[in-house]
This record gives sequence, structure tokens and C-alpha cells, in this order.
Amino acid sequence: MGYKICSKKTYEAMVQEYNEILTKGLNIDIRRGRPATEQLNLSKAMLKCKPTDFIAKGTNADIRNYGLPTGLPEARKLFADLLGLTPDNIYVGGNSSLNLMYDIVANCLLRGVLGGERWLNSPKVKFLCPVPGYDRHFRITEDLGVEMINVKMNADGPDMDTIEELVSSDPTIKGMWVVPQYSNPTGITFSDEVVKRMANLKPAADNFRIFWDNAYCLHHLYEDKQDKVLDIIEECRKAGNPNMVYTFMSTSKVTFAGSGIAVVAASPENINFLAKQFDTATIGYDKINQMMHVEFLKDAENVHKLMMQHAKIMRPKFDCVLKTLKAGICNSNVATWNSPRGGYFISVDVMPGCAARVVDMAAKAGVFFTNAGSTYPYGKDPQDSNIRLAPSAVSVQDLKVAMKVFCLCANIAAYEKYNF
Amino acid sequence: MGYKICSKKTYEAMVQEYNEILTKGLNIDIRRGRPATEQLNLSKAMLKCKPTDFIAKGTNADIRNYGLPTGLPEARKLFADLLGLTPDNIYVGGNSSLNLMYDIVANCLLRGVLGGERWLNSPKVKFLCPVPGYDRHFRITEDLGVEMINVKMNADGPDMDTIEELVSSDPTIKGMWVVPQYSNPTGITFSDEVVKRMANLKPAADNFRIFWDNAYCLHHLYEDKQDKVLDIIEECRKAGNPNMVYTFMSTSKVTFAGSGIAVVAASPENINFLAKQFDTATIGYDKINQMMHVEFLKDAENVHKLMMQHAKIMRPKFDCVLKTLKAGICNSNVATWNSPRGGYFISVDVMPGCAARVVDMAAKAGVFFTNAGSTYPYGKDPQDSNIRLAPSAVSVQDLKVAMKVFCLCANIAAYEKYNF
Repeated sequence: MGYKICSKKTYEAMVQEYNEILTKGLNIDIRRGRPATEQLNLSKAMLKCKPTDFIAKGTNADIRNYGLPTGLPEARKLFADLLGLTPDNIYVGGNSSLNLMYDIVANCLLRGVLGGERWLNSPKVKFLCPVPGYDRHFRITEDLGVEMINVKMNADGPDMDTIEELVSSDPTIKGMWVVPQYSNPTGITFSDEVVKRMANLKPAADNFRIFWDNAYCLHHLYEDKQDKVLDIIEECRKAGNPNMVYTFMSTSKVTFAGSGIAVVAASPENINFLAKQFDTATIGYDKINQMMHVEFLKDAENVHKLMMQHAKIMRPKFDCVLKTLKAGICNSNVATWNSPRGGYFISVDVMPGCAARVVDMAAKAGVFFTNAGSTYPYGKDPQDSNIRLAPSAVSVQDLKVAMKVFCLCANIAAYEKYNF
Repeated sequence: MGYKICSKKTYEAMVQEYNEILTKGLNIDIRRGRPATEQLNLSKAMLKCKPTDFIAKGTNADIRNYGLPTGLPEARKLFADLLGLTPDNIYVGGNSSLNLMYDIVANCLLRGVLGGERWLNSPKVKFLCPVPGYDRHFRITEDLGVEMINVKMNADGPDMDTIEELVSSDPTIKGMWVVPQYSNPTGITFSDEVVKRMANLKPAADNFRIFWDNAYCLHHLYEDKQDKVLDIIEECRKAGNPNMVYTFMSTSKVTFAGSGIAVVAASPENINFLAKQFDTATIGYDKINQMMHVEFLKDAENVHKLMMQHAKIMRPKFDCVLKTLKAGICNSNVATWNSPRGGYFISVDVMPGCAARVVDMAAKAGVFFTNAGSTYPYGKDPQDSNIRLAPSAVSVQDLKVAMKVFCLCANIAAYEKYNF
């Protein structure tokens, strides 16, 4: 392919610049979507929230004791309000929505879903994986022995033609991973049409489930430009598929990433069924932490205010990445990227066959990006093109340096692959 | 069988007394081992413990953020000290040791154990279950499709002759549930000989694991008379079976039953392997709660002091149960029971064929005991004889009433079965 990247002179200047950077001993890590210390400090007051009354609202249950396995009523209500649902749609779990997803996939395999056989009774178990997607989703299904099938992500969501065809014809396809709003990593939000088509799927498997990870539903970057994905639970209900979807969210990036609370939202039938399955595994999740969250977060309006404080910290980082990319990528062939309105990531496609090389070159210079390939099942990006940038944890100053290195590596790798 | 229970006159007087109680509208629940409010209040100060420094000792990790998946170093050290182990033996989990057990059984089935195949590759998966035992253990294995085999519990632990024979001859036996100290429900502690024989098992299955639920290791009733079970991890190491055992404990009955922290202790190899498996499911457990525990519990000595405060609350309840049984059971044929030195339970064997009737009669009178049969796999006590008493959550006054009702029901049921 004869893409013209830059002149030989420019290339040589860039190589020299890169070699100089190698001597600087940089150490900048933008691998994972970790909140910055400044963001964690926004919720410092939560640790001062002490339940004064230990009896959960409308019950006679002491929150310090066993009981209330579906969660504190106050917490169920708060999340219902945040999601536009009712408390019977909500199961409040522990500190990790990823853990809830893992447990549900394991339970589907071993014990089945509401109204369907356990997945392990199927000769094979397959999941559809819109790509690029979230590496930790793919790791769950890989480690639990589920076969993964790539489906292309478009600007309005995954390619629904492919999904409809596969899901309706193959009864061994039991599930699908999606991040519907400010998607990880592409940052896009599913269009209403995509959501409606998803809700109207006619799966060949009666135990098919969509794993709808709405991790970034609250994570807008702007006050005025906000995406909002359609309510999949309501759309599934209207489509006559009320139990086809499990949705997830957590406060990991609202309060504390290590000590948030995680939620499953689904149809009341699914919630009752899940609660029964989870009841074998636990006598209930940590209700003191739930109470601290309720006292600190107060109500949906207050949560949105808190999220705008997060946005204020995040926005300059996103701006810095986008600006540095624009200035530093020498040619529109070399890389394309998105400008998301929320979430935690910027997704860059460098030239095919260059991603692993770029990540490797940057690592040698002390700048660490998520492994090339990690946004694809089995860590295999067939184009070797996608790189996920996670700017949250790093200062704007460091980001600027990191992104300059990134641009340099992307330019050099492209030149060496296509212009040598 | 011609057991003489009591005179007809005594029987008739008891029936009359029972009928009078029926009219009293009692409502006393001694079904589950829940801490009393007084016990929860012992740890009230934990909620005042606020981490002042968010950086975990010896690391640069902010405890409010993702990271430290095996637990806070300070928490690992505290539990190591409590158990006479080293931090590399310790994995600190969430708020429920039951949850860790469930997750590990599920992972053994789906993903395997260190140095062995996954259990699901076996044509069958069986567990040995010393009986009577803990209903929630049996529910985990039942719901995960594991076949359970009863093994008799003796005064010094489970019948090791049977266990040795079965484990060494049947490669589909993959595990065994045990509560080694102040056993649930019989209150006994395994003798050194039983522990040593267990550590020296020669399983036919190379992926066999003992699930050693040391839930009551800290739960003595007396300052001067304390059982201590031998360290199974060390015994397994000496026996050349270093990875054959997973042990569990939690602070559910040390601090808060809903918001404690749970621990797996095992060989360093097992801990590394488990940490790797758990890492697929979660980015780490709640480190704020771990830090609050460390700050409140301080050190092993302080924990033992706290446990003596628990003992002070528990002892009168155990005394009341034992005294009322002694006074109220009219004949030594009618019931036998244990007098444990710790734990949460008193186990009573009523006459064969009487347990369900006793629990049912008591329930009609408003006094609720754990379902008959629940101390056996599948809820089936072949003798219909064992009843577990859980006196912790109820006042001494209510316990006295409840136990009088129990004695009456046991006497009447025995008379009607054996003297009619």
C-alpha cells in the first residue's frame, strides 16, 4: 500500500527525537481507567458518613447483621431513581460490577437462567463480542471456556445485521457483551435504533442473555452535550423479551474505585431469580457501605452534581489528548480517533499492522499504553490497529508528554511499515 | 422399641401445658447463628475508624482506588498473626467467607485447581460431608450439582476410617466440607490425630481439596477452657500434601455479620493460584473496609480481648439452653446434646423419627428452630433425629421460654412415637 506518511527528512528527525526521549527515563502509565486522586478526594466526605440508625428503612433489619440479600431498600431506591427504574428492578451487590458479571456467567453455565436450561447443557457456549471492546469482559468469557465471536462496532453501536443473523440462527450463542453508553473503548453511545433492534432479537437459544454493562451511564464530560442510551429493560419488555437482558453499573468511578457498590438492573423476574441464585453464595453484601453511599450520595440530582465535578477534572485530560494527537500525527492516514462526550477512554486506530509496534516503542520510552490487541477477544486484533488510551489517572502535564511520544511512535511505525 | 418415656399422667399434663402455650402467641426465632445486637455494639467504634492516610503500608497504592487484589498488606498481616501463619498464606476477600467457598467450588468445577484438571472433566463430582454439618455448605454443593456423601461425625471429628477408604479409592471424590473447631452444629473440635490423618490422606483424585471452614476459630466461650485445632496447612505441608486444603475464616461474628471481612488461608502456591483465578472476576475487594478493620481490631491480642467480650454475652445463653434442657427433658432416652466450649450452636439428638415433629410442634407454638434435616445434605436426616439450636440472637428470657417449649415437644413426640 502506497500511503505517503512524511518525507524521509521528517522521519529521520522524528527518529532522532525518539532516541533522545529514550534517555529521559520517563515513567507514565495510561493503561487503565483509574480515577485520579483528585477524583477520589471528591468523595472524601463519604467516610465521615456514619449511620446513626442501624435499622434499614421500612424494615426491622439491623444493617450490621445478616439479612436484606437484595440490598438496602434505600440503596435500591437510589439506583432505581438514577436509572429511571423501580426498586424491584435493582439488585445491590458488593464492590465490583465485574464480579457480578463473572458470577452471573458462571451461574448461567452451571445453574442456568430463568426459564431456560443451564448453558453447559449446550454442546458449545458462544458469546458475541462487539470489537473493539472491554478486555476484562473478554477475559471472563475466555477463562470460563466460552467461545467468542467478533462483531464490528460502528459509530452508532454494534453491527446489528450481523448480530440478528447470528443470534437467530445459532442456538449455541448464549450471550453478548456490550457497553452501550460512552463505550469502552470507542466512546460511542448506541443509537435508539440499535437499542430497539437489540431488544427485538429473536434468539435461537431460549437462554440467551445480553450483558449490558452501563458502566459509564453517569460519566458525561459536558454539562450541555450528554448522550443518553435508551432504556433496554423497557425496550425488551415492549418487545416481549422482558428477561433477555442483565444490565450493570457501579459507583466505582463515582465514589471510590476500590470500595464502590455495584448493581444489577433487570426485570423483576430476573432480579428474583438472581437473588435466589446469589442466596446460595452469600448471606448478603456489605450494607454498611451501602448506607454510607446512600447518606453521601443522597439522591439522583446530587449524584449528577458530583459527576459534573468529575467531568471538570476529566475534561482537560481528554482535551489534552485530542489536541496533542491533532498536532502530532503527521498525516490523516497515520491514525484516526474518536472525540467522546463521556466515559474513560479515547480509542485510536493506527495504521494496520502498527499497533503492537507503537505500544512497544512507547513502552521502551517509558510510556505505557494498554497492550495492543487487548480490546479484542483473545488479545488478537486482526488488523493490529486499535490502541486504547486511558487518560484519567495522569496529570495533564504528563499526558502531554505521553501523547507526544505516542504520536512520534505512530508516525515512525507508519513510515517504517508503509514508506520504507 | 420399648423405651419408657414417662407415665401416661405426665404425658397428659404435658399435652395440656403445650395446648396452653399454643394460645400465648409466642414468636421466638432461634433458627440462625446471628450475633445479638449487644454483640454488634461491641464493634460500634469501628465505624469511627477513618483511614487518615490512604496509602497502603509498604506500597504506593491508594486504598480508595483499584489494586492490591490479594488484600491490604496490613490486613494480610493481621490475619496471618491470628492464624499463626505468614501473609503469603492469606488472601483477603469481601464480606463473606461463604461467598469465597462458593466461588472456589464454582471455579474448581469450571477452571480447575492448581496442578489438576477442572472437576467438570470428571464423569461425576462428589463431596464428603461429615454429618450433622452446616446446611449452607451442603446447599453450595447441591446447587452446583455436586453429589454429597454422608460421613459420620464422632466426638473427635469425622470418621477417618471411612474418609480414608473413600478418598483413596474413588477419583470422583473431589472435596470435603469440614468445620474443624467448635463444629457447626455439634460444637466439637477435631483431635490432633484426626487432623493428622486428614493431612495424610492419599486421594485418588489429584485435584481433591479439603474445604476447612474455620469459622469459629476465635469463638471461645471461656477464658480458661479453650479448644485449639491443629494447623492443617502445616500438617498438610509436613505430609507432602501442601496444596490439598483451603481454609476459611471471617470477622462476620467478630465485628459485623453483614460487613465483616473474609479470608482464605492456604499454601502460598494455592494463594497465588486463587489470586490469579479471582483476578478474572474482580479488580479487588473493598480495602476501605479492610483498613477500618485493621484500625479497629489492631492486633491479635486485641482481637482475643474482643472475643472475650463476645463470650461474656454468649455464655449465659448457652448456660440457659443447657440448664433448661437438663431440667425439662424427662428421660435420658428422649434427647442427648453437647456442651460445647465455643462456637454458635448446640446440637440436640431427639429420639429417631421425632425431629421433624418436634420442630413442627414448636413452630405451631411460635418457637422456631432450624428445619429438621437441615444439618444433613439434601435436608434429609436419615434418623430424623438432629436439631440445631442457635441461641445467640435471643435474650436469655426468651431462650428459657423457647427451650421449655422445646423440651415439652421433645417429650411429647417421644411418648407418642414410642409409648403409644
